[in-house]
Amino acid sequence: MFVLITYDVNTETEAGKKRLRKVAKACQDYGQRVQNSVFECVIDPTRFRFLRARLEKLIDKEKDSLRFYFLGDEWKNRIEHIGAKPSLDITGTLIT
Amino acid sequence: MFVLITYDVNTETEAGKKRLRKVAKACQDYGQRVQNSVFECVIDPTRFRFLRARLEKLIDKEKDSLRFYFLGDEWKNRIEHIGAKPSLDITGTLIT
Repeated sequence: MFVLITYDVNTETEAGKKRLRKVAKACQDYGQRVQNSVFECVIDPTRFRFLRARLEKLIDKEKDSLRFYFLGDEWKNRIEHIGAKPSLDITGTLIT
Repeated sequence: MFVLITYDVNTETEAGKKRLRKVAKACQDYGQRVQNSVFECVIDPTRFRFLRARLEKLIDKEKDSLRFYFLGDEWKNRIEHIGAKPSLDITGTLIT
């Protein structure tokens, strides 16, 4: 499955900056960073449930926001990009 | 149609900060801010083409990144949210 993950982590405090680093690290373990707070993951449902649970534990639900977008099988046709490219393309599946 | 817009604007310079403000303003005119650099737009194709052209002119394509995700008719079933809510819900269509 294809899941787009976007997040806003409140970094006003040191604890927030730490949460941000941990959220980014967790996403990096499972997906491709396409923008600063945007990751695209091609992931099986079991691993996704694990990642979601991990992220849910990491964030402060009062201060931080996580959104997941499930693009379905036709995900390659659902993405369009303009401008600077992400620095890294591990999977080769990234739409540029 | 439903379009998710995400952007990274390089704000190392004053010109970059100005671009960021203009990009955010353009997106606000057409959609719902759900995170700092993430907007959800329920928009007809003609208006979307206009918005895309406007954004394309605003960004520096060497430094900034714009991504569009077209979620299709089933978009309400394709979104999941965890954590803090966006401050504003104009349309009532936002998935929280």
